[in-house]
Amino acid sequence: MIVNAYAAPSATEPLVPTTIERRDVGAQDVLIEIAYAGICHSDIHAARGEWGPISYPQVVGHEIVGVVTEVGSGVTKYAVGDRVGVGCMVNSCRECVNCKAGMENYCLKGNTQTYTSVDRDGTITQGGYSTHIVVDEDFVLRVPESIDYAAAAPLLCAGITTYSPLRHWNAGPGKKVAVVGMGGLGHMAVKIAHALGAEVTVLSQSLSKQEDGLRLGADHYYATADGVVFEEHANEFDLIINTVSAVIDMGAYLGLLALDGTLVNVGAPPEPLPIQVFTLFGNRRSFAGSGIGSIQETQEMLDFCAEHGIAPETELISADEINDAWERVLRSDVRYRFVIDAKTLVTA
Amino acid sequence: MIVNAYAAPSATEPLVPTTIERRDVGAQDVLIEIAYAGICHSDIHAARGEWGPISYPQVVGHEIVGVVTEVGSGVTKYAVGDRVGVGCMVNSCRECVNCKAGMENYCLKGNTQTYTSVDRDGTITQGGYSTHIVVDEDFVLRVPESIDYAAAAPLLCAGITTYSPLRHWNAGPGKKVAVVGMGGLGHMAVKIAHALGAEVTVLSQSLSKQEDGLRLGADHYYATADGVVFEEHANEFDLIINTVSAVIDMGAYLGLLALDGTLVNVGAPPEPLPIQVFTLFGNRRSFAGSGIGSIQETQEMLDFCAEHGIAPETELISADEINDAWERVLRSDVRYRFVIDAKTLVTA
Repeated sequence: MIVNAYAAPSATEPLVPTTIERRDVGAQDVLIEIAYAGICHSDIHAARGEWGPISYPQVVGHEIVGVVTEVGSGVTKYAVGDRVGVGCMVNSCRECVNCKAGMENYCLKGNTQTYTSVDRDGTITQGGYSTHIVVDEDFVLRVPESIDYAAAAPLLCAGITTYSPLRHWNAGPGKKVAVVGMGGLGHMAVKIAHALGAEVTVLSQSLSKQEDGLRLGADHYYATADGVVFEEHANEFDLIINTVSAVIDMGAYLGLLALDGTLVNVGAPPEPLPIQVFTLFGNRRSFAGSGIGSIQETQEMLDFCAEHGIAPETELISADEINDAWERVLRSDVRYRFVIDAKTLVTA
Repeated sequence: MIVNAYAAPSATEPLVPTTIERRDVGAQDVLIEIAYAGICHSDIHAARGEWGPISYPQVVGHEIVGVVTEVGSGVTKYAVGDRVGVGCMVNSCRECVNCKAGMENYCLKGNTQTYTSVDRDGTITQGGYSTHIVVDEDFVLRVPESIDYAAAAPLLCAGITTYSPLRHWNAGPGKKVAVVGMGGLGHMAVKIAHALGAEVTVLSQSLSKQEDGLRLGADHYYATADGVVFEEHANEFDLIINTVSAVIDMGAYLGLLALDGTLVNVGAPPEPLPIQVFTLFGNRRSFAGSGIGSIQETQEMLDFCAEHGIAPETELISADEINDAWERVLRSDVRYRFVIDAKTLVTA
């Protein structure tokens, strides 16, 4: 099946309209007609080779919602017409201890990412900036009817990437949670942490998004640029979710943690972060990482968002705006997630 | 009260016999006639100014056991003749949230360390390489009769520093615990983790102490120098206690952690350690610090060691051997803790 898509021809050129081939629908596969695809900062990092060399042309996109239009003979979970989603992974080894524990996001052999991975048939996976995708039903999510369809897309990465650590580290009533960075991930972290009942603080470079932050559920909003916040709120937070993928002064942020507090990075700077052990000694602090979430947890997140009326703030664009949108993502000029209307993915 | 001691005259000179003044016994104080004092690597770091400038002359030592010879009018917990110990701290603010939670080792104002701290009377605290010490009863521990008296001293730092994270991160049956470094702290971590029921692995540069490690309770003992261990045991351990205070390749060690595993530093390198966030993403790993333990937890540790017949492996020395012993500590030429016989602390 040949389908329309937008692909990166190289690490340095703009994306271009093209066609790609999707595999035949296997026994366990569903064919999804994509309705919307979110734009994640990771798409840009990956397409530009910033996380390591990749092959080209490459279609990215791992925040996908659409409708099932065909199912394989062995498919039991989905039927034609179902409203579904696909996130950052489309398969895993299913044999390692983590996969067997239902934590396929931590597959020890490395799960099959939605794009840039070697798929089971040896081809390179191609992502959601396209009109259709074929995915094993075990890696497909059900999108509740009550979530706005276009807005659902970013939940598949920005939503689960923040929901998972917030749940794992017990954000909830009586807990003080800080969110570093008020972008695609950050604004979802604010909404979810608020819905979980935590006291939420945004730590952003400036106060330019303060009004939004408070509207989305933050109790406090502080600018980090002047540094005073690091003194006034030292030893205060039980959990800090760092969504920033640039190198920031980790010592300053770790100093904000209360006894047994954890700073969790969901942002992924390519450079190593220098950590002073003496800072970790204070308050028995931890520095941790968290990568997306399991399929089961992603479904739980979608259901949680439906129940609590949570959806990302999105800006709908057509395919010919993708390159501009990427530039705006790099300038943090988006409130808070671009979503591509897949109907506009037409071959030039 | 003027008492005999061994002091560092400067950051660069050997220790010399001297006398120091101990404060009068206050209402809440006990006077302890010191029987034994352990030598901790921290003593050397501190005395040589490697953790920041200090004033001289300075008496170090924070692994102290002795006998109560006088009590203040308000003392209720101890009586003359009691067998007691003093560890790394002799006071704390008692007002912060951590102190009020009984976690005075994480006092937010910084607890009063047994040496190099500014004491409540404005003097600089002087440590255990001396014949007597005056300490508030709230920071004195009871040393069970069944623990060998000289061997009890190192429990007050090496014991509690390893016991606390092993307990906090739930070392026990079904858990795989690795101990990095087979020195004063490391050999205690092996004994305690084994007594807690964990499967214990030592990761040491060479196999030179393998026989000891297995005798003390390790189930496995691997040399890290050839690097193969980092491949063969990737993703294996629930908890790693890093006792090494030099800079080691943290990425390699973090890679040994299983899902939700934590690497806890109890060693304190002065330089920042570079941490790759991508390594933390794998298995949702954490990098944490742990500083000694609370007074309550230190008493629990002493009682635990008495119950399980655990004591450090020690080498008893006289005061005139301290400078040589320090050199041997720096060469890792000690199995596994030097203990000074305080009777030999005579003024030159």
